[in-house]
Amino acid sequence: MSLPTLSAASARAGAVLTIDLAALVGNWLKMKSLAPAAETGAVVKADAYGLGAARVAPALAEAGCKTFFVAHLDEGIALRGALPQGRIFVLHGPNPGTEADFVGHGLIPVLNAPHQVAGWAAFAKASGKPHPAAVQVDTGMTRLGLNPTQFEALRADADTLKAIAPCLLVSHFACADTPAHPMSRQQIARFAEYAQGLPGVARSLSASSGILLGLDAQFDLTRPGIALYGGNPTNAAENPMAPVVTLSAKILQIHHAAAPQTVGYGATHALPAPTRVATVSLGYADGLLRGISNPEKPVFGTVLGTYKARMIGRISMDLAAFDIGEVPENLIAPGDSIDVIGKYAGIDALTEAAGTISYELLTRLGPRLFRVYTNGSAP
Amino acid sequence: MSLPTLSAASARAGAVLTIDLAALVGNWLKMKSLAPAAETGAVVKADAYGLGAARVAPALAEAGCKTFFVAHLDEGIALRGALPQGRIFVLHGPNPGTEADFVGHGLIPVLNAPHQVAGWAAFAKASGKPHPAAVQVDTGMTRLGLNPTQFEALRADADTLKAIAPCLLVSHFACADTPAHPMSRQQIARFAEYAQGLPGVARSLSASSGILLGLDAQFDLTRPGIALYGGNPTNAAENPMAPVVTLSAKILQIHHAAAPQTVGYGATHALPAPTRVATVSLGYADGLLRGISNPEKPVFGTVLGTYKARMIGRISMDLAAFDIGEVPENLIAPGDSIDVIGKYAGIDALTEAAGTISYELLTRLGPRLFRVYTNGSAP
Repeated sequence: MSLPTLSAASARAGAVLTIDLAALVGNWLKMKSLAPAAETGAVVKADAYGLGAARVAPALAEAGCKTFFVAHLDEGIALRGALPQGRIFVLHGPNPGTEADFVGHGLIPVLNAPHQVAGWAAFAKASGKPHPAAVQVDTGMTRLGLNPTQFEALRADADTLKAIAPCLLVSHFACADTPAHPMSRQQIARFAEYAQGLPGVARSLSASSGILLGLDAQFDLTRPGIALYGGNPTNAAENPMAPVVTLSAKILQIHHAAAPQTVGYGATHALPAPTRVATVSLGYADGLLRGISNPEKPVFGTVLGTYKARMIGRISMDLAAFDIGEVPENLIAPGDSIDVIGKYAGIDALTEAAGTISYELLTRLGPRLFRVYTNGSAP
Repeated sequence: MSLPTLSAASARAGAVLTIDLAALVGNWLKMKSLAPAAETGAVVKADAYGLGAARVAPALAEAGCKTFFVAHLDEGIALRGALPQGRIFVLHGPNPGTEADFVGHGLIPVLNAPHQVAGWAAFAKASGKPHPAAVQVDTGMTRLGLNPTQFEALRADADTLKAIAPCLLVSHFACADTPAHPMSRQQIARFAEYAQGLPGVARSLSASSGILLGLDAQFDLTRPGIALYGGNPTNAAENPMAPVVTLSAKILQIHHAAAPQTVGYGATHALPAPTRVATVSLGYADGLLRGISNPEKPVFGTVLGTYKARMIGRISMDLAAFDIGEVPENLIAPGDSIDVIGKYAGIDALTEAAGTISYELLTRLGPRLFRVYTNGSAP
């Protein structure tokens, strides 16, 4: 059996996710311009926030990005396959017994806890040479990182320090998306204090939101994630980032519906007047969060780049419904698409409707979506 | 490079999803016993609700299931690879131009709309022989299916009927999870009326919730889905199904935390007293819905099958936090696991906390989870 062509796979798909690599690179360059004194890395964990690390990371590397962050070891191994050059840090650090996998694939662990430090040091000592690692310190999030006592113990242990050869000091903001939050100033001060204990080691505190906090939050290396993918990194302002994704769902069927006919599960939406209803091949199993259903403020899909189609009724596992009454009947037919993420509903509007954040929408975009990459080099 | 062993892959994983195939089969047999006059099929769309259709479907086939339902053509093609025997229906029907793929992989389309009927009939006529298909009719959900006028047009078209050789009449309940809802009785009556128009063709109306509505909802073939996977098919009663999944997340770090230290993003959880906090390698990118964060009614993970550990703070993309203050300190260490779906929090409790349904939690269980199948035959 021969491999299917892209166009055949696209014809079979229920929905198409288009990723604009030029917009993505533009967002990275914007983050870089906002932190001119620091190196700008990129966070590509969770498969580059659902968009495909194997395409996203090489596009960023081509634009000059040299340092990448994933969460899991297996993500690092997969990424190394797509990215022969470049530093790859693994934020979760080594589970016991996996140290050799890091070295074998050229991955740098972030050591978060004393047992990870001890395990990595023992591995390095046994191998007879230092193996550089990053060290995370906790500046107030109580999530990952050494506390001051543990950090002091590490500083006092010359053998261990030599074995793990720290190449980066890492911490993470808890409230950076709210610029006025007092916790961020505390975290910056605490991080600077830790950093004095490891002079000469590069420092990294800021992800996307942190970069926007200004120069004193940026230190030596930044780690933008959500901003690259078009999400709003701050609660305080309009989204300054360019949209990166479009999600177009194919119309399976168009109903000429009477009123007060109901639409979807629970009969939660009764049509106020006769209209046409389009059922599209996209549901919460694809990442269209069920919480978007029946929002207080209407959510609109985009038809032909121009017409508004209101999402109605409950989102099903594999299907959703749109009122296409405003689209001229001769312009739309089954097989055509509705942009569910598009001009009239970006990722911020959809996640606001669902009461969550764009990070969750993106990272849960599912495997049934057919992914198309535009405005980038060939893989 | 040799393939990694399962145990190495398991060591690298952040969380392990265990699927009890015997419990799954038991749930299928229970659905079958509740509909003794009907054939009992199985819905395995969305990769068997996130649990892996390639393992779930063969286990059900071994127990006697002969008919399977997926949503997308590509799901059907993948399933056929794991299931050489057995009928596979594709609920979304054929996108134009994909008809040959159905026949090539032995898949039966559900024809939902006039253009799908016409496309399939044209394909069959061109191939010189009938190609059996299912026909969906709309009984009130305004989602997929022919309306009465379209159905009558099909009945009147002998050539088309001969070409598509209907083998199953399908419809779907909108409100079956609420047994007293009057809409279900209406849908049963409408469905029976449609069925009189295609005498001798098998009829299928009920998914899990519909089966529980009783004998007159069951017709000839049932399509249980959520019930097989341990979800509660009805809003009206305790969950009668056996749990199928356990989700265990590895502890990356344990903090001895002071009060009123805060935990996680937004500093939303301030510890009321000093305790130990475990950070586990599981987050919303893995399907641990962010809406579960800081629930009104506490959610508890399970440690060592016995101890309760309260989930605290906001769920991060790749991490979550638990208060393990009640677990004796000598019994728990980094590398150990907390059952996030387990004894103290089943899929129903977690999704109630998130304001959604178990279907959404299951279908978004992510690709980073290491899946283990127990109590089943080897693949």
